[in-house]
Amino acid sequence: MIKSTESKIVTAAMLAIGDELLSGRTRDKNIGHLASALTLKGIDLKEVRIVSDEQDEIIAAVNAMRERHDYVFTSGGIGSTHDDITADAMAAAFKIKISHDPRAMKLLGDHYAARDMEFTTARQRMARIPDGADLISNVVSVAPGFILDNVHVMAGVPSVFQAMLEVLLPTLDGGSLMLSAAVDCAYGEGTIGDRLGEIQKNYQETSIGSYPKFDGKSYTTQIVVRSRNQDAIDHAVSDVRKMLSEIDG
Amino acid sequence: MIKSTESKIVTAAMLAIGDELLSGRTRDKNIGHLASALTLKGIDLKEVRIVSDEQDEIIAAVNAMRERHDYVFTSGGIGSTHDDITADAMAAAFKIKISHDPRAMKLLGDHYAARDMEFTTARQRMARIPDGADLISNVVSVAPGFILDNVHVMAGVPSVFQAMLEVLLPTLDGGSLMLSAAVDCAYGEGTIGDRLGEIQKNYQETSIGSYPKFDGKSYTTQIVVRSRNQDAIDHAVSDVRKMLSEIDG
Repeated sequence: MIKSTESKIVTAAMLAIGDELLSGRTRDKNIGHLASALTLKGIDLKEVRIVSDEQDEIIAAVNAMRERHDYVFTSGGIGSTHDDITADAMAAAFKIKISHDPRAMKLLGDHYAARDMEFTTARQRMARIPDGADLISNVVSVAPGFILDNVHVMAGVPSVFQAMLEVLLPTLDGGSLMLSAAVDCAYGEGTIGDRLGEIQKNYQETSIGSYPKFDGKSYTTQIVVRSRNQDAIDHAVSDVRKMLSEIDG
Repeated sequence: MIKSTESKIVTAAMLAIGDELLSGRTRDKNIGHLASALTLKGIDLKEVRIVSDEQDEIIAAVNAMRERHDYVFTSGGIGSTHDDITADAMAAAFKIKISHDPRAMKLLGDHYAARDMEFTTARQRMARIPDGADLISNVVSVAPGFILDNVHVMAGVPSVFQAMLEVLLPTLDGGSLMLSAAVDCAYGEGTIGDRLGEIQKNYQETSIGSYPKFDGKSYTTQIVVRSRNQDAIDHAVSDVRKMLSEIDG
């Protein structure tokens, strides 16, 4: 048995907001991006929810998540039209006021003035920020996201979501990195399953996943060993390889 | 104001299960597929959750969802390895027993016998089905999914998920179709937002969404009007086009 080293666990949840994700009109591209980025920071994404543009749904989801996790990240619903209700929903969830934020008004006002574009009521809607929130800068298209306590509210347009996350990442307090090693194997899960289960039992500090692929005729499997302890991974992988060479005969 | 016709509303939720979706290792392909398929059946997908391979998380999510919705669909965790715990989690969620189902044992036993493959303990794990469940046939790779009350448990491998859903769809009780019409517009949301909000107010029976696209320089918008009443859509779309031609000048 390999001794556990002290690990720092940081958890996160994501809330993707938008009818279009639930109707099939738009395929979400932000969840996978956030998942990969957080893994590189040692932050465990534990849960994702997708909800529609309905205030009660957004409030219930964000309140459930922000209680349980160190960080919450949201995508969607911070544009300039009537169906962009995320900022108001967040204010309601936190039971705080929302108004046209002077910093956001200046950012957006300057932006449109420089382009000789009218700063319409709709555009001013993007400056509605719950009181006391910090802004997340948007290098792509100006309109900011915001941070309320541990909740990070970002845009749904993937290029903007990614740009905002890029700004946020260095500010996040990461955890011990989750390390992993992958072993590709030519067998289906049914061939390796019993013995892989034994290996998992022997290395409790690791989480051994097996991911089947089907090519239309037969299954192959990728075995992924994850842990915050590299020694534990090395030992488990060594046993996995030994198992595979024994099956090879 | 257009009078509402009698609409039949059927709602659904999806639970995608798997550590690999939360680590970024795998990008989910099933959510969007299910969303599109349900929309075509007139079933409203109202909520999606992604959880890890942890029994408590799966139980909490499925119990929350099956209470609230007509249908629940799950993906992932029904393979043959130790990390495939969905069937056991479902049995625990429903507080019923789970055992090696004779129908599933026969299906799988015949399959492996015909291929001269050993019906290992791991493979037999795929026949573990909560007592009283109906099976969902798997024309791709035999191991069945199952139905417990309103919960439909399917594989995570996309080709298998899709094949199982194909079998299920004709058995589902669909609702009134959600109809939609899309209008592409060359303006960003800030230009159209105020007036689009007015149009939304005038057509309460429709849900008008606006979906910005950013090409790196400027925004365009797709306006989508959704309703179960075609007349309401036609009237709202007509007003949207009128608005756009007025902005065109």
